[in-house]
Amino acid sequence: MAKSICLLSGGLDSSTCLGVARREGYECYALSFDYGQRHRVELESAARVARFFGVREHRIVKIDLRAFGGSALTDDIDVPKTGVKDGIPITYVPARNTIFLSFAMAWAEVLECPDIFIGVNAIDYSGYPDCRPEFIEAFERMANLATKAAVEGRTRLRIHTPLAKLNKAGIVKLGVEAGLDFSLTHSCYDPDARGRPCGRCDSCLLRAKGFAEAGVVDPLSYG
Amino acid sequence: MAKSICLLSGGLDSSTCLGVARREGYECYALSFDYGQRHRVELESAARVARFFGVREHRIVKIDLRAFGGSALTDDIDVPKTGVKDGIPITYVPARNTIFLSFAMAWAEVLECPDIFIGVNAIDYSGYPDCRPEFIEAFERMANLATKAAVEGRTRLRIHTPLAKLNKAGIVKLGVEAGLDFSLTHSCYDPDARGRPCGRCDSCLLRAKGFAEAGVVDPLSYG
Repeated sequence: MAKSICLLSGGLDSSTCLGVARREGYECYALSFDYGQRHRVELESAARVARFFGVREHRIVKIDLRAFGGSALTDDIDVPKTGVKDGIPITYVPARNTIFLSFAMAWAEVLECPDIFIGVNAIDYSGYPDCRPEFIEAFERMANLATKAAVEGRTRLRIHTPLAKLNKAGIVKLGVEAGLDFSLTHSCYDPDARGRPCGRCDSCLLRAKGFAEAGVVDPLSYG
Repeated sequence: MAKSICLLSGGLDSSTCLGVARREGYECYALSFDYGQRHRVELESAARVARFFGVREHRIVKIDLRAFGGSALTDDIDVPKTGVKDGIPITYVPARNTIFLSFAMAWAEVLECPDIFIGVNAIDYSGYPDCRPEFIEAFERMANLATKAAVEGRTRLRIHTPLAKLNKAGIVKLGVEAGLDFSLTHSCYDPDARGRPCGRCDSCLLRAKGFAEAGVVDPLSYG
């Protein structure tokens, strides 16, 4: 069975993406990051989703993105409750996808696995520059110049983005097709002490809109 | 004074590179990684060189490259003592420069600093694919699609590689010009218990050749 590395945060998008990789027949190696997220519930969701889809291995790599600060998701900046706006929000973490994909590259090289799945999408993407197709293409090009395997012509690394052209409703529908149990996932930027979503942050609002437009009931209970 | 991020391992190349950035008038932010190197002497050298050149700040980011294995520098594989050979040696760490530059990108974005210095060179480069100019160019292109600052047109990230076209002798000469105290640096892949270089690994042999050809005496004492 062909192997693939799947970046998995435990959110709606990356969980759907993992489900797609499984449905396409890949043996999946899920990769999550403990990067000083405010909320541990995110990593717990990732572990539940990884088990649900029967991944071959799930690794959680600890990296310190807080070392540099600069985001409401890792820093002591309040998460805004103002809904979806134009521009790049302060929940953006500098270079996050670049760093995550770089680690995926390292593991891909060791496993001799040329396929990496990442659940980015450029439609309902909250304005993060490192979710756009032109970024992913540039990363793939760079990666194929960086690795021993690619240089020796053994494996050409491919970054799969099955969610790239979907809006949130499309992602919910794809998640249904992939058999994802949405109750295992986690989207909120600012959950309460028991891990329940706030229902008001950008991420909760996008998720709610997606489920509503897809005509699917979100099994998560809101605080 | 313009800021720059300087990747610093404490080796001959990155220390020379930092010296060049200082000589060019940059205020330097040195960035090192604790990535499970076998030898702590590397990080001690980096700290000494950072102090020597009066950097504004020196951060050591802990990342776990051993999580994936695959290199004699981080894994339980013996460092070969066979001299410089063709091909890519097993001291190659998968995706190392990609990961290091990704973290530099993150810090650059937070500091609003568009200049990153890295001491790669493609002549006496031990065959690592992620030291080649085409890799650096592809990384720079990717980085300028990834960051909020670049997308908003505030700063265009530039990766400086002042050592790119130099052989080891040229690097030694450049280090002399930049005023580097070579006794602070460390190159050996396999030092003894007191941190003294082995004099036989690829890195020691390249260093010795560089000093000899430059007509400079290496102040490091060999074990």
